[in-house]
Amino acid sequence: MGKISVKTLLQTTPNNQEVHVNGWVKTFRSNRFIALNDGSTLHNIQCVIDFEQFDEALIKSISTGAAIKVTGILVESQGRGQSVEIQVSAIYIHGEADAETYPIQPKKHSFEFLREKAHLRVRTNTFSAVMRLRSALSYAVHTYFQNNGFYYFHAPIITGSDAEGAGEMFRVTTLDAKQPPLTADGQVDYKEDFFGKETNLTVSGQLEAESYAMGLGKVYTFGPTFRAENSNTSRHLAEFWMIEPEMAFYDLNDNMDLAEDFIQWVLKYVLEHCGDDLAFLEKRLLDEEKGKPIAQRSEMALIEKLRFVVDNKFKRVSYTEAIEILKNSKPNKKKKFNYIIEEWGADLQSEHERFLVEKHFKCPVILFDYPADIKAFYMRLNEDGKTVRAMDVLFPGIGEIVGGSQREERLDVLKQKMAELQIDEEELWWYLDLRKFGTAVHSGFGLGFERLVQFTTGMGNIRDVIPFPRTPQNASF
Amino acid sequence: MGKISVKTLLQTTPNNQEVHVNGWVKTFRSNRFIALNDGSTLHNIQCVIDFEQFDEALIKSISTGAAIKVTGILVESQGRGQSVEIQVSAIYIHGEADAETYPIQPKKHSFEFLREKAHLRVRTNTFSAVMRLRSALSYAVHTYFQNNGFYYFHAPIITGSDAEGAGEMFRVTTLDAKQPPLTADGQVDYKEDFFGKETNLTVSGQLEAESYAMGLGKVYTFGPTFRAENSNTSRHLAEFWMIEPEMAFYDLNDNMDLAEDFIQWVLKYVLEHCGDDLAFLEKRLLDEEKGKPIAQRSEMALIEKLRFVVDNKFKRVSYTEAIEILKNSKPNKKKKFNYIIEEWGADLQSEHERFLVEKHFKCPVILFDYPADIKAFYMRLNEDGKTVRAMDVLFPGIGEIVGGSQREERLDVLKQKMAELQIDEEELWWYLDLRKFGTAVHSGFGLGFERLVQFTTGMGNIRDVIPFPRTPQNASF
Repeated sequence: MGKISVKTLLQTTPNNQEVHVNGWVKTFRSNRFIALNDGSTLHNIQCVIDFEQFDEALIKSISTGAAIKVTGILVESQGRGQSVEIQVSAIYIHGEADAETYPIQPKKHSFEFLREKAHLRVRTNTFSAVMRLRSALSYAVHTYFQNNGFYYFHAPIITGSDAEGAGEMFRVTTLDAKQPPLTADGQVDYKEDFFGKETNLTVSGQLEAESYAMGLGKVYTFGPTFRAENSNTSRHLAEFWMIEPEMAFYDLNDNMDLAEDFIQWVLKYVLEHCGDDLAFLEKRLLDEEKGKPIAQRSEMALIEKLRFVVDNKFKRVSYTEAIEILKNSKPNKKKKFNYIIEEWGADLQSEHERFLVEKHFKCPVILFDYPADIKAFYMRLNEDGKTVRAMDVLFPGIGEIVGGSQREERLDVLKQKMAELQIDEEELWWYLDLRKFGTAVHSGFGLGFERLVQFTTGMGNIRDVIPFPRTPQNASF
Repeated sequence: MGKISVKTLLQTTPNNQEVHVNGWVKTFRSNRFIALNDGSTLHNIQCVIDFEQFDEALIKSISTGAAIKVTGILVESQGRGQSVEIQVSAIYIHGEADAETYPIQPKKHSFEFLREKAHLRVRTNTFSAVMRLRSALSYAVHTYFQNNGFYYFHAPIITGSDAEGAGEMFRVTTLDAKQPPLTADGQVDYKEDFFGKETNLTVSGQLEAESYAMGLGKVYTFGPTFRAENSNTSRHLAEFWMIEPEMAFYDLNDNMDLAEDFIQWVLKYVLEHCGDDLAFLEKRLLDEEKGKPIAQRSEMALIEKLRFVVDNKFKRVSYTEAIEILKNSKPNKKKKFNYIIEEWGADLQSEHERFLVEKHFKCPVILFDYPADIKAFYMRLNEDGKTVRAMDVLFPGIGEIVGGSQREERLDVLKQKMAELQIDEEELWWYLDLRKFGTAVHSGFGLGFERLVQFTTGMGNIRDVIPFPRTPQNASF
């Protein structure tokens, strides 16, 4: 407490006052200029020392990565690009960083290399900017919902049921791994397990959130979810954070309105609060894309892209319309798509979603009213008997960022659907109770938080927007 | 969107305007007065109907728990305790709730009964108040840290290491439960598991948070943590949410200052924002305690107790002083404690902590400088060589609510401690790196969120402050 950050110092009017500040050395030039950073901001404060006044050994220990405390006078800076600097009177070395062995030297490191150093990578400009943005986005999510009458709901992480009726799950257990107890007929006896039954890590808090929406009205989750899919891609994590609002008395249109307003609001928040970090990441991306053929470069720079989403209405298109557009599209006719769209009922792939967003409409798109057969059991069946009130929000560069629906509120229709899909009613007795007692129209959606962080920061690999990524064969740190 | 909540309606100036509102029937008296609630607030809005104007079948379906939409004119209320009411012109029944089978009838239900109905209990006044407070407390936590220069850090949930060097953990696996693959020497072959090694659910995000504090300066976690302890008590959950701030350049005093300021701020926040729910819960607690002997009743009512914590400095006492006080205390001399304090070095039990807080100091207490032998390996050793810079914040009625420490920043001392406790250096290579490269004084603490919710709401059983509690033999819903 009472400690001053670099961020605050940089905004302080210099008045020849004595200041104390802690941080890590980013660079040390000419035995004279220390660029000091403490993580509070992307920017460093310049600390100017007269090396003749200091012990040689001390000067030697001021190297990139060393933690130091600087005491000195805050003055107007003579240098370019900075308003203030410190004329140093004393330096205390908290801890050195040997230049021979410290991996985070002031040069370009590949993201692959930095993933191996995930405990240190936040000391680089890129990752500190990404993680500050991740934090700001998180807070924007909470602030939006709290300001709009939603209550934060902590969905259970360990669960006895599979919410989506699909998806590979991680088992959670305390049974002996080698010789689990067996029942009389030779099966693993989960009655002996910690919870007295087989349990898994949740893939979604939606069903439980529905039960809370049917009491508190509007709720949202923001917590970790898990998929044990063996997908080693730049788009998949085994552990990721999900945001799932759920609202009583909302129909599909209300749901689409909410998704659009929510995304625009949180992006506006970071545009207003994280300008420095966004500008840095925008420049990083431009530099990176310089090495690419023009056709593969982004059409818009990062901040322009965010403003575009904030300022433009999302285009709402029914699945049926979208299929017509895709069927008649050039890449479909010329068989450039990997999956050719032949008829109504086809599941859309990322290439189709991106065509619609990036080539056809050139704006974020909300697709709605999907075929029932390609969507989950809990989605509200339309009067046509073949489509459901589902919606997906599609973003440039990223494809689906939100998936949601109006929920099936009719007990008999829901039961029939579950019977068709052989979902056990006894397993979901409590979910059916919500349709027995005071059921009502309600809706919700899920947003994969890391996709949002990727979109906002322009980072290409999802492993680079979460502190310690969990992927197949990797749970380091 | 554009839907009006009961909360908003109750604050609206009546002007004979037509309004539409959705909600659930709490009670329906004299075929005339519907108390309607939508979860946005504890309070109901009274909807007055002229039953002669409505179909008899419709009137019959208005029972406790039914979801309805009411249209009518907002007028000043004639009744006591409410400013406005609705003169109803139309009612739409979303969903009925059969009085014979709907479990949440307007009468007193035991908390044990309601735990069996965890999917419906948020429809009661008590649980809706508790869960709204839980949401407000969560937001207060985020707001405090974000306003004070902290960044939100998502610690990994699945981990290959045991952060505390102790604690029963849940294994996370995709191996075949009955016949796992074995190595040549007959052990379970975790190389075949999803992550290529044995993994568990985290018991704390602290060590990873330290790595981020040493880059971003000040960070905090707020996420689920897990203990596979077979403790079936009113104080333990297998899955609970923890808040763990971690700060570079903070010593133990800074850490104590932060803990005190943080707790006082979040309590002040709910006192300012959740007055209605707190007043309801205070009355509930007073009613409950009426049945108890006077000696067992709380000395302060709920809101008074919260104000007391907000308004009073926490008393800071060294462990050594505390032991002297306890040794000379009446309950120790008269052997009323279950564990008699005989000498320096004893681990304090809940009964001792509560004596210090409730009987001796009569205010929140921070104990610090504990014997090294009873604390974790990562705590900063004092110059006396036998105590560590640990601190526990003790609260009335609840005992320890925060545990923290200054962290051992010296590589050699940390390594020696790990060797003594046989903690594998290779396992924590990255944690040691933080002491090799730019190490510095740093500190942090952990706060069990459910304990804070219990303290704030006055709920006696921890299972009643989390939506879907996970405890031994129970992972329902």
